[in-house]
Amino acid sequence: MDIAKLRDGILKQDRRALARAITLVESARADHRALASELLDGLREVGKQALRIGLSGTPGVGKSTFIESFGMMLTGKRLKVAVLAVDPSSTRSGGSILGDKTRMERLSRDPNAFIRPSPSQSHLGGVARRTREAVALCEAFGFDVVLIETVGVGQSETVVSEMSDLFLLLLAPAGGDELQGVKRGIMEMADIILVNKADGDLKSAAMRTCADYAGALRLLRKRPQDPEGFPKAMTVSALQEDGLLGAWEEITTLTDWRREAGHWYRRRALQADYWFHEEVRQGVLARLETGTAKTAIERFGAEVSAGRVTPSAAADKVLALLDVKSS
Amino acid sequence: MDIAKLRDGILKQDRRALARAITLVESARADHRALASELLDGLREVGKQALRIGLSGTPGVGKSTFIESFGMMLTGKRLKVAVLAVDPSSTRSGGSILGDKTRMERLSRDPNAFIRPSPSQSHLGGVARRTREAVALCEAFGFDVVLIETVGVGQSETVVSEMSDLFLLLLAPAGGDELQGVKRGIMEMADIILVNKADGDLKSAAMRTCADYAGALRLLRKRPQDPEGFPKAMTVSALQEDGLLGAWEEITTLTDWRREAGHWYRRRALQADYWFHEEVRQGVLARLETGTAKTAIERFGAEVSAGRVTPSAAADKVLALLDVKSS
Repeated sequence: MDIAKLRDGILKQDRRALARAITLVESARADHRALASELLDGLREVGKQALRIGLSGTPGVGKSTFIESFGMMLTGKRLKVAVLAVDPSSTRSGGSILGDKTRMERLSRDPNAFIRPSPSQSHLGGVARRTREAVALCEAFGFDVVLIETVGVGQSETVVSEMSDLFLLLLAPAGGDELQGVKRGIMEMADIILVNKADGDLKSAAMRTCADYAGALRLLRKRPQDPEGFPKAMTVSALQEDGLLGAWEEITTLTDWRREAGHWYRRRALQADYWFHEEVRQGVLARLETGTAKTAIERFGAEVSAGRVTPSAAADKVLALLDVKSS
Repeated sequence: MDIAKLRDGILKQDRRALARAITLVESARADHRALASELLDGLREVGKQALRIGLSGTPGVGKSTFIESFGMMLTGKRLKVAVLAVDPSSTRSGGSILGDKTRMERLSRDPNAFIRPSPSQSHLGGVARRTREAVALCEAFGFDVVLIETVGVGQSETVVSEMSDLFLLLLAPAGGDELQGVKRGIMEMADIILVNKADGDLKSAAMRTCADYAGALRLLRKRPQDPEGFPKAMTVSALQEDGLLGAWEEITTLTDWRREAGHWYRRRALQADYWFHEEVRQGVLARLETGTAKTAIERFGAEVSAGRVTPSAAADKVLALLDVKSS
């Protein structure tokens, strides 16, 4: 594979080159990994930055419709939009939340949009790395906005949040007491909560839900990276393309403020630091899942479960076997 | 030190033996650690279980007053109560949230109560282990209730939650918009939120705050370990000793349900498993903070911060140095 040619193709905004490059970074083959590193290193100094928007929402909230409407609104503003996904379910099923582009028919035909399904990987750490690399390729290509979609098991939201400049949480209106449960910590990650389906019969329910979440957001501690009024909750209708411009204006207000206050760059630097340490930690912990360590952990874990040894004593024994000094 | 004698002392409910045993498990000296392991192993099969209640609340919510009033109410019911603490600040300052027993004057004189300040340790992992061991000693001694207090930086709440059967969050009434911020994830850990100071001028504010949090709790996903109506928010007045009996009744309802449904034992088994794996992980990760690993991480971390290398490429280099295969 000619890496220089692939690099040039991306810089010339050749979409097929981008697609091939993403396939390359998604590969687990050692020779592919080396080529991918070479490519990413060659693109590192291009220096283009997209606005990276993380987006989470459980099935049924209208996420595909929202991405399509929101994406079309952005391309209508002459912005180039890439849509990537981190799909925790693909690690098991091999399925993909964005595999079916027919769910975003208009956007997938738009020359200023690029939709890429989630890669199938064996674990979330692998998905995280591949997605971050795909984001870097999209930035070098010259996309203005990169939407990173996920559907929540908490962990995947953390992954997406740590590679995004801001995080949107999409919700559906809830009726009366049967409010949808928001999973642990996800509400706290959101910069903007969008209550979708604020149309027709659901409009007033959407407004009530929005008010509920606005109230809940006020109960959370103020973060230094938030200007007055953020995080906030708003209603939108992806179906009627209503409120999308307003949402984009809020996103712009927030990102402008963060750029001026220095939070934007600080956050990117912190994220780079996070991923560096995280990959080292994950690499070291991965050792525990093979060979002697795995055998020892299974054996002593069974002893702990049976109540024959305390967790601490068992851990000490495993660490002694690994020749690691206990704390 | 005569471990057999110490063991007998604890089983005979000799409080000085208990205090000495806790001092032993808190020691970082290698010979003390070995004796502590021997003692804990000898007590492991006693099989007594206390109700372990985790309690978090920021300074100013009246935590000491609450513990005193709640503890006195419990000893009034002929229950034996131990109070332990996990103090994240003590890892830095050497200070202690429970060092000053004069804050709980009545309870500290009560023969059925036992108050132990937080140990000073160099890191939260160490505090966690010592506190779990102190809890085990209190259980073997025969306490009915072990209250484990903390004051929150998130991480310490996780530690306490993972060694508790249930978790209480104590809050103060908030006026209007200046609602106190609850830190990430802590609201989601709470089984019961208690809004304290529901007395005098603050009573109506406490009731409003309680209603706000009850609303926020309804927005969270239902957990399998919760019966109908839990987690819940209630008002109490520690000062006027009002609502404490009601809180205890809710605690009893919840724990009875969890025992019958099997969640109680399942949670304890999961916690043992959690601490076993956590101690192995922490032991392995502690390696990264010394010697070659530390030097390499610092060097490549600086390269990442300067933007000269991607986080992944830097992590790969560190792992190669540590002779760990990357994922």
